[in-house]
Amino acid sequence: MSTFPLNAWYACAYDVEVKKELLARTVCKHKLVMYRKLDGTVAILEDACWHRLLPLSKGRLHGDEVTCGYHGLVYNSDGRCTRMPSQETINPSACVRSFPVAEKHRFVWVWPGDPALADAALIPDMHWNDDPAWAGDGKMIRVKCDYRLVLDNLMDLTHETFVHGSSIGQQAVAEAPFVATHGNRTATVTRWMEGIEAPPFWAGQIRHASGYEGAVDRWQIIRFEAPATINIDVGVAPAGAGAPQGDRSRGVNGYVLNTITPESDTSCLYFWAFARNYCLGEQRLTHELREGVASIFGEDELILEAQQQAIDEHPGYSFYNLNIDAGSMWMRKLIDRMIAAESGGPVKPRVIPLRSAA
Amino acid sequence: MSTFPLNAWYACAYDVEVKKELLARTVCKHKLVMYRKLDGTVAILEDACWHRLLPLSKGRLHGDEVTCGYHGLVYNSDGRCTRMPSQETINPSACVRSFPVAEKHRFVWVWPGDPALADAALIPDMHWNDDPAWAGDGKMIRVKCDYRLVLDNLMDLTHETFVHGSSIGQQAVAEAPFVATHGNRTATVTRWMEGIEAPPFWAGQIRHASGYEGAVDRWQIIRFEAPATINIDVGVAPAGAGAPQGDRSRGVNGYVLNTITPESDTSCLYFWAFARNYCLGEQRLTHELREGVASIFGEDELILEAQQQAIDEHPGYSFYNLNIDAGSMWMRKLIDRMIAAESGGPVKPRVIPLRSAA
Amino acid sequence: MSTFPLNAWYACAYDVEVKKELLARTVCKHKLVMYRKLDGTVAILEDACWHRLLPLSKGRLHGDEVTCGYHGLVYNSDGRCTRMPSQETINPSACVRSFPVAEKHRFVWVWPGDPALADAALIPDMHWNDDPAWAGDGKMIRVKCDYRLVLDNLMDLTHETFVHGSSIGQQAVAEAPFVATHGNRTATVTRWMEGIEAPPFWAGQIRHASGYEGAVDRWQIIRFEAPATINIDVGVAPAGAGAPQGDRSRGVNGYVLNTITPESDTSCLYFWAFARNYCLGEQRLTHELREGVASIFGEDELILEAQQQAIDEHPGYSFYNLNIDAGSMWMRKLIDRMIAAESGGPVKPRVIPLRSAA
Repeated sequence: MSTFPLNAWYACAYDVEVKKELLARTVCKHKLVMYRKLDGTVAILEDACWHRLLPLSKGRLHGDEVTCGYHGLVYNSDGRCTRMPSQETINPSACVRSFPVAEKHRFVWVWPGDPALADAALIPDMHWNDDPAWAGDGKMIRVKCDYRLVLDNLMDLTHETFVHGSSIGQQAVAEAPFVATHGNRTATVTRWMEGIEAPPFWAGQIRHASGYEGAVDRWQIIRFEAPATINIDVGVAPAGAGAPQGDRSRGVNGYVLNTITPESDTSCLYFWAFARNYCLGEQRLTHELREGVASIFGEDELILEAQQQAIDEHPGYSFYNLNIDAGSMWMRKLIDRMIAAESGGPVKPRVIPLRSAA
Repeated sequence: MSTFPLNAWYACAYDVEVKKELLARTVCKHKLVMYRKLDGTVAILEDACWHRLLPLSKGRLHGDEVTCGYHGLVYNSDGRCTRMPSQETINPSACVRSFPVAEKHRFVWVWPGDPALADAALIPDMHWNDDPAWAGDGKMIRVKCDYRLVLDNLMDLTHETFVHGSSIGQQAVAEAPFVATHGNRTATVTRWMEGIEAPPFWAGQIRHASGYEGAVDRWQIIRFEAPATINIDVGVAPAGAGAPQGDRSRGVNGYVLNTITPESDTSCLYFWAFARNYCLGEQRLTHELREGVASIFGEDELILEAQQQAIDEHPGYSFYNLNIDAGSMWMRKLIDRMIAAESGGPVKPRVIPLRSAA
Repeated sequence: MSTFPLNAWYACAYDVEVKKELLARTVCKHKLVMYRKLDGTVAILEDACWHRLLPLSKGRLHGDEVTCGYHGLVYNSDGRCTRMPSQETINPSACVRSFPVAEKHRFVWVWPGDPALADAALIPDMHWNDDPAWAGDGKMIRVKCDYRLVLDNLMDLTHETFVHGSSIGQQAVAEAPFVATHGNRTATVTRWMEGIEAPPFWAGQIRHASGYEGAVDRWQIIRFEAPATINIDVGVAPAGAGAPQGDRSRGVNGYVLNTITPESDTSCLYFWAFARNYCLGEQRLTHELREGVASIFGEDELILEAQQQAIDEHPGYSFYNLNIDAGSMWMRKLIDRMIAAESGGPVKPRVIPLRSAA
């Protein structure tokens, strides 16, 4: 069984990464080449020439067309071959697959499955990443593990206590009760830690934003949207100021935005951002937070790659689940449902009909 | 068929290597984590958390207990889980395997097979390694070959002539007759070279110890103890001084102690020491001999890894045996017998009964 | 099915590479050790000792005999064992395979198949490489691809336009018509580009040789000889000076000599030289041309290794052929015929009969 559904939008690049040049990426085992067209939109093609399989990303971009770097076959942004060397008639089958693409919330999204099902309304909501009421930035890292291990990691923040003890972890996270709920495509884990001492990271943020020093109410509301996006609403407010009841006005709020894209069964592209609703104009803080979160995620990366290696060494191991795994279990159930739903019929690749021989 | 028996003691560390911190090693395909407890004895656990398989060696040691570095499950030195995050009831199945362990003759020994059979009396005699009548030291190296290739190497010292020509090798070793005998768990190869010129290494030792220069009687008595230990009684005495008849009083005597531990079918941990019965107080000589032997074994390492690679490239090759292989053939026969004996019934891992839920 | 025939001569070294020392090479999945004998001729043996498989190339050469670096078995240049350690009788089966060898046109050739069929008349004609009427030199590079991808590359020079645009490529190569013909063991592709502007490389050569600047007639006559040799007759002459009709007297002519030797199904040794018929005494030009061609072939190497990787990622891909692939299709047909012809009966290795026990 596949480890990921194909009929879904997956982030394949940060907006700034895609320029008027060829960029190679792998999504759901598909090798892709992407580039920005003259009109500023993005085109994504299969990264293998129809003729001899050389990756098109080794070729050259001229305007909106890609020239293969070996024998010079030219493809337009629909993947149709428009020129062949030393011959005038173009073989009608000469094309490479093109993929539905969308750009939203600072990510470029690709739909590796049936193009007929690619509905832009299904792109996950990550609006905090380009909403003027929020400020932030993020990065992409390649992690050598099943993308679901990253999702597991994010669905249960208990691990902060043990993995990120010097920044955001604290005993309260491992001890506080939480509530897990779910819908058809979403699963949510909510944890409130009331009247606690803030961990180093949050103590610094609320002091910087409002001068407050003292006990806090801390929240983590983790929301998974199948198959691969998790937005986490995090923050602290002065203890007793009403945050648990809905009044966060005296607190500081951030969103940890995460969307993870399988490359293969054992590697993934992890796109994340951290957006905040305080001190919006401080570019230095944006920089500091981005690098701080990157360093925290570096700690996770070591754990996740070691875990993947251990899983490879224990084929067929049946995992035991703890109470803390409630959110992650729902997450995996929702993904499995999507995979099962599409395993009924095969995905039909979009074939470009040839209108005229050049 | 397995390449090694499981019901045996294998060296897994030099005594000094095991401290009050977590050390990862692989023995007979088992990933292990070991540490020294508060009482000074050593504990060895399976190096994979029961919950999500993260190697426990990536976690932290507190007193005698190991905390997993991901979600904070705590294990005692019997492998029983004593704490879980965010829950009070501990799953009765929550444990990792613990292994019988012993410390003797400067090595830490582990028994990867059925714990009920782990009898300390079966630890190989390597007493020269901590006997005050002998002085010496050793090292551990990781060699990328089947552990039996290292044993082959040691059972036939003819190779000294061709591999170690500048130190201990000499034509006499390849030419002198030898006698091979065997018992139920041991095989012995005895070679006397009488009235010869000493090779560079031994000429230097006897001159340093007694000022003697001249022809020598040289001996090599190689004793294998199944499955993986070889102690070699080596030395020279003035020619005609009676050493072959039992009077070694005017000679110099060393023991090359070797015990080899399979990591996998094609890699092993090679523990060795060189102990001598002369110039006991000279620390400089101990240092010099340890580094000298290390350099000689470095020559073997190149040969052994090249041989393993050649074996991998010739699957199913039937090896031809020469007269010099008599000792090695017995060695392999004794190992095969041990493997066959235990392939009758599967090894029962020691499961820790849960006495009370914490 | 094999990707290469065994009953053929393959280049395994440049003449200067083989000295009175042991050199390891892999040809058609055979590990070989080669050396120059006292009489100056070359011996090639299987690179694995009969006793314990250690590569003989790790041993030592004494005169014409090789001593294994582990236990000292000695082999003569026929592969027969002539000495064993600690025993006087030599096992009659003790030998390693020896291979037919020839030295011609600056290459050392080996025949990995049935020795009875090794006919020196079958060595490909590459005489330009040591003919005093021509001057030149070459190199060997190891390319991580099926050797037939290198042959594909050479059979269709259209790729020069896209891969080598700054030196020998020009639009004319991709546009000019060509003629493909074939015989029983050869396939030829002829392309004339008449009255064109010379590309940078050739413009420089003809200016240097004769001062000529102006339009040229350019030719490329690619001749494949099964299974792995391609000699390309290339050059330019002043336009209209009669070169297409056979009078090349006012032009400059070069031969790109190529012979490619499979190591495995996905790696090969690519031997090449560039010989010219002008400015024969200019050593600086020889040097410059050798390094210039090496740099052009470096561009091919990147393409070929990327192509092999793409092929590995698309198992079972059916390749489409363009008009430009006519020569390459014949080349592959001729190779396939040779492979099919020899798959009837197995190759009998040459066993050295033992004349006398040493």
